[in-house]
Amino acid sequence: MKGTHEDWILFNGRIVNIKEEQPMVALEERGLQFGDGIYEVFRLYNGKPHLLDLHLERFFTSMKEIHLNPPFTKEELIGQLQQLIEKNHFLEDGNVYMQISRGAQPRNHVYESNLKPTYFANIVPFPRPTTAMKEGIKATVEEDIRWKFCHIKSLNLLPNIMIKNKISEEGYQEAILVRDGIVTEGCHSNFFIVKNNKVITHPADHFILHGITRHHVISLAQALHIEVEEREFPLQEVYEADECFFTATPLEIFPVIHIGDEQFGNGESGPVTKKLQAAYEESIAPLKATN
Amino acid sequence: MKGTHEDWILFNGRIVNIKEEQPMVALEERGLQFGDGIYEVFRLYNGKPHLLDLHLERFFTSMKEIHLNPPFTKEELIGQLQQLIEKNHFLEDGNVYMQISRGAQPRNHVYESNLKPTYFANIVPFPRPTTAMKEGIKATVEEDIRWKFCHIKSLNLLPNIMIKNKISEEGYQEAILVRDGIVTEGCHSNFFIVKNNKVITHPADHFILHGITRHHVISLAQALHIEVEEREFPLQEVYEADECFFTATPLEIFPVIHIGDEQFGNGESGPVTKKLQAAYEESIAPLKATN
Repeated sequence: MKGTHEDWILFNGRIVNIKEEQPMVALEERGLQFGDGIYEVFRLYNGKPHLLDLHLERFFTSMKEIHLNPPFTKEELIGQLQQLIEKNHFLEDGNVYMQISRGAQPRNHVYESNLKPTYFANIVPFPRPTTAMKEGIKATVEEDIRWKFCHIKSLNLLPNIMIKNKISEEGYQEAILVRDGIVTEGCHSNFFIVKNNKVITHPADHFILHGITRHHVISLAQALHIEVEEREFPLQEVYEADECFFTATPLEIFPVIHIGDEQFGNGESGPVTKKLQAAYEESIAPLKATN
Repeated sequence: MKGTHEDWILFNGRIVNIKEEQPMVALEERGLQFGDGIYEVFRLYNGKPHLLDLHLERFFTSMKEIHLNPPFTKEELIGQLQQLIEKNHFLEDGNVYMQISRGAQPRNHVYESNLKPTYFANIVPFPRPTTAMKEGIKATVEEDIRWKFCHIKSLNLLPNIMIKNKISEEGYQEAILVRDGIVTEGCHSNFFIVKNNKVITHPADHFILHGITRHHVISLAQALHIEVEEREFPLQEVYEADECFFTATPLEIFPVIHIGDEQFGNGESGPVTKKLQAAYEESIAPLKATN
């Protein structure tokens, strides 16, 4: 069987060809029995990592939050990820998915201290979703049923899945999640509104994921002298906003042009959103330049 | 290698000897990447299942809640579980753990419709914890940080794990979880208080697991003409209670004799707790009778 260039994955420190060897995990892996682990997704543009330092920092922070001792240093992991990209000769736009879970032991809520964590990373080709970025998406409103530590990028994603599948069937691409009347974020994206040229988003506390793209967009806004306010806001402010958009690592910045049954605004991406998208484009230009 | 009598497990419909074959799951199993699955634990007394119907009913309800189509009928699953017990010649006290997750696919929040779920079950010898049942345990109070669908027995157990490991290190066996001022349940048990001979516990809504032992204990209390009130109560009522105890399938009924730094009551199991334990004992007597 002829291999493709995403045949190589990183599995517990080794670069493995999945056409030759099928890496698997034990039934007693705590990642499988408890979701006892965390993950990260970072972007490759023309095969080159974007904002890798920030993603790795969050990866290590997530491990620390759940008291999982990394079986590698940051430098060792960077080396392994570089090997992964090189071995696949990957020069396109894609996502690197990586996860680490606590390891296998006879099932018990209390984990043993000497477990060997299980980790892997793979590359998924993923072109920039230019249509959604330009034309916008339909969003709907759902209750935020998740736990109270959403800042941890954990493998406990069942609430996100349940919401995402429900809204997908209804024809929506993202949900605006509301907890106790306050808009938090999306199922797999952070959420922003724009009012009077001011960009407003939920503070980076325990109720949202501290998105790297969220962080990047805030920096871009500040560089453009667009005022940014990180504060809680109720759903009503969304309906009264001039623009609103989501951000996510694989999807960059994508405007909302429809909320529930109703068109939002004039049904098009707004001027602040476009400015931020242009700035984002510029920020990745060095990576997108010819190899 | 000489096998023990728990060498056989149920894996996707087959009874497999783990000394001969090591069942494993793919990295893309959604149970591993999202915790996209549910589980169940039921008790064997002298190798005989206790309250199996109720456990299977909950197992199927949990699957339905997350829109996972079971790859077996209830009758087929019962047959497979019987084979599991027989093949292991298991005649002791133990727990059967079983879980099912949605199956493997390239990572995407949206699940494909034709996935083949992964399921397994194994037997863990587990003597009745008579000391904890008689002498009681030390509990502490923790914030209930879990999601809002705790009635689903899902594989998303990271909050439970984080709390359980924290309190274990502090020397406690269970946590009294409090959400918005209301006592819900424990990390892996339901919670009851007794006041003026009345038994009080959180209603079986979305904020607690609908414990089978909880249900059984309520029935036992009613048969004993002990009044049972299912209602919300604040933490203060725990401190003012005459008795309090947890219930869980593997642990039955275990009294709390210490909360945080303080002894609770006179530091011993109370009369209502003892009455319920005696009734529980009686209810399993037919299973405990000689084989």
